[in-house]
Amino acid sequence: MGKKLFWIAGVFFWLNLPAQTKDETFIRKIADEILVNSQAYENLRTLTKTIGGRLAGSPQMYQAEAWGYQLLQKSGSERTFKQECMVPHWVRGGNDQATATLANGTKKALDVLALGNTEGTGTKGINAPVILIRSFEELEAKKDQLKGKIVFYNYPFNPRFIRTFEAYGDAVKYRTRGTSLAAKYGALASLVRSMSHSVDNNPHTGGTRYDSAYKKIPAVAIGLKDADWLAAELGKGTPVSLFLKTMGHFLPDAKGHNIIGELKGTEFPNEIITVGGHLDSWDICEGAHDDGAGITQTIEILRAYKALGYRPKRTIRFVLFANEENGARGGARYADEAAKNRQEKHLLALESDAGGFTPRGFGVTCNDAQFAQLKSWIPLLEPYGANQFTRGGGGTDVSFIHEKLNVPMAELLPDSQRYFDIHHARSDVFEAVNKRELELGAVNLAALIYLVDQYGF
Amino acid sequence: MGKKLFWIAGVFFWLNLPAQTKDETFIRKIADEILVNSQAYENLRTLTKTIGGRLAGSPQMYQAEAWGYQLLQKSGSERTFKQECMVPHWVRGGNDQATATLANGTKKALDVLALGNTEGTGTKGINAPVILIRSFEELEAKKDQLKGKIVFYNYPFNPRFIRTFEAYGDAVKYRTRGTSLAAKYGALASLVRSMSHSVDNNPHTGGTRYDSAYKKIPAVAIGLKDADWLAAELGKGTPVSLFLKTMGHFLPDAKGHNIIGELKGTEFPNEIITVGGHLDSWDICEGAHDDGAGITQTIEILRAYKALGYRPKRTIRFVLFANEENGARGGARYADEAAKNRQEKHLLALESDAGGFTPRGFGVTCNDAQFAQLKSWIPLLEPYGANQFTRGGGGTDVSFIHEKLNVPMAELLPDSQRYFDIHHARSDVFEAVNKRELELGAVNLAALIYLVDQYGF
Repeated sequence: MGKKLFWIAGVFFWLNLPAQTKDETFIRKIADEILVNSQAYENLRTLTKTIGGRLAGSPQMYQAEAWGYQLLQKSGSERTFKQECMVPHWVRGGNDQATATLANGTKKALDVLALGNTEGTGTKGINAPVILIRSFEELEAKKDQLKGKIVFYNYPFNPRFIRTFEAYGDAVKYRTRGTSLAAKYGALASLVRSMSHSVDNNPHTGGTRYDSAYKKIPAVAIGLKDADWLAAELGKGTPVSLFLKTMGHFLPDAKGHNIIGELKGTEFPNEIITVGGHLDSWDICEGAHDDGAGITQTIEILRAYKALGYRPKRTIRFVLFANEENGARGGARYADEAAKNRQEKHLLALESDAGGFTPRGFGVTCNDAQFAQLKSWIPLLEPYGANQFTRGGGGTDVSFIHEKLNVPMAELLPDSQRYFDIHHARSDVFEAVNKRELELGAVNLAALIYLVDQYGF
Repeated sequence: MGKKLFWIAGVFFWLNLPAQTKDETFIRKIADEILVNSQAYENLRTLTKTIGGRLAGSPQMYQAEAWGYQLLQKSGSERTFKQECMVPHWVRGGNDQATATLANGTKKALDVLALGNTEGTGTKGINAPVILIRSFEELEAKKDQLKGKIVFYNYPFNPRFIRTFEAYGDAVKYRTRGTSLAAKYGALASLVRSMSHSVDNNPHTGGTRYDSAYKKIPAVAIGLKDADWLAAELGKGTPVSLFLKTMGHFLPDAKGHNIIGELKGTEFPNEIITVGGHLDSWDICEGAHDDGAGITQTIEILRAYKALGYRPKRTIRFVLFANEENGARGGARYADEAAKNRQEKHLLALESDAGGFTPRGFGVTCNDAQFAQLKSWIPLLEPYGANQFTRGGGGTDVSFIHEKLNVPMAELLPDSQRYFDIHHARSDVFEAVNKRELELGAVNLAALIYLVDQYGF
């Protein structure tokens, strides 16, 4: 639909009060069903407390797959199926250790976590002087001083960004690219300040990317209190050496699966709306917000639709993606399958992977007419919290189908203030999730999918 | 300013881009100052961890007054003063106790808290059969069965309300009015289901109001898990008796104080903008969200203005109100003082007393032109979180000056999902407050006050 035509249609839509009232009424029913009868919180408890961390390839990944499959069936999925994909199988291999030694002989154990996908130090560990690096500019300026050292990237998480994902985007390059850049100049390992503004000392892990041109050196994340201490000691100008021991390594790729539930469309069964989150998590936490929340919200939407007897016009797929954290093979496989099936037309791929916090809006990558359509729905969603629609965004898993088939993608945008307190850290546990905030995320997702289902996109 | 004139002025305001840019720039400075250098979180730590619960009349009330006075001075107050007011001095007098006994002799200790301002049972306690009452309608229907019994109000906190304060407004009458209504029909005590949707068993206290026509019977709040257990037992139809012991009583009224800091207006010193929270809290918690958050935000706004060298056009008062929880004498005294000083013109009285959660907007009681003016500022505040301006609301403390002098009043509306998890319960502790959410509340308050100061109201 052209932009002008859309606006005319939009005016008629708004004058069409019975439709508006019908939508208001049904969205109210969705909210009541979820806020009164939701299973999302108890499902999250099971996922986090009986399975726990579930990195790709781990036994817990398989447990989570079985749990998800059964729960989709129990929640009313009309067709439940798996999409196999080979996933990387990285293991931590032991407890990560770091001990700093000051010039006066004082030793201090530092709380560190090896970055995902990194090679370990070997059983003997590495002992080397630490050099403080505050930015890539400083790295370049000091490139002749790095050989045989451990590079300590101490780039702060900028508190000025209101949406904390912007601070993450600003800082995360020291985790993803910093390791190989340090190796390029002969460093033996890298230590990176956690991407967080937490008030505790938990290190925050996450993936790093080795540049194949350089040696694969070990890399760890360090918590903020230890980072501040270490930076202060290095600031005194006296040498600090660090003993580092990590045991990370890859096992052969494993068979992982996207776990998918479906409600078949009654009018346009070949038009597909996808909603999902990722089933895997880092190994060192329960993955409650990241992304147990998105998984349990996805299943809750299905449960609520079935409880309300809702029969969608279009086919809705509820996808528990495999391996988002350290490979994203599940998202890639989902896009490949969609590309193979030429009959299917994917209208929208929607992801919840920014935590189970109170919903504030949606980020959407789509064309102007679609964005205008979405904005026209704000009055229907605002009573439930989502009133900020921004352009851009969509989530790692759905980015593949977007890139491959130009399918519009969207993501739930919960309030972001607490996310990087717990992201990829031991503190991402069930207790950090609030029941109602989790449920309201599901309400807003279910309402948006309902509108796309009713009116197309 | 008339409504039509306002709209014309509004158009010029929007065309006046340099002013907009100036405001954007200054509000960005406010945000940076608070997000980078805020003392609010550490001040809250001191208030909650070194003083703690600070009910009117308690030694902790005086400690909090001294702390607040000194902190306002240290934060740059140009004139710091107190307003004395006599406050009620209710004491709990001991540990509240409740034990249920089933027909088969099984005993179960229940976690209860006496409601504030209630008379105790005496040292021997009360032992009486419990009767389950789900609503005031049921109370009336069963009024002949209440004599000599303990009434158990088990009215649920309705999860369908999105804004949880509506659920509170719906349920709180069983706490405030239920005690005397039970006494009216001869009940010996009342037990009220906590106004909460928490997932724990903490009872939530709060004030009750005795109707002088009836006997002042004891009353306690009970946590949700115990309430569900008790309701289930009573639902079996076999009798349950309850032993209740509470020791609450009043001591003579005490001298309390509003603690006030001030920045003098450079152009319109007689025009007053008030911002505040309440310094007191219930005795059984740290009062971190209620209302340590409002207090530390209030002081943070002052600190940030001074740090930025901001010299307001109008006089800004930073008020730490006395005795909101069980008497509201501080708010009344502030209004009385304002009424005496005929030279002063109060433009707006703004309160933060809904928790230190992520800000979503403001509730405002004002006229149409003023509300339109506020809405015109949404684009300036939205980047920092406040984009929902609703009519109505203002806060208990500022309601007195509103009622007495028709001063517009407003309240910060943080996200409300977590507030009634901790409200008036032992779980309202420092750890339940997130540093950035607290700070962003201060940012939005400071920005709104800046705009009112610049443009009048």
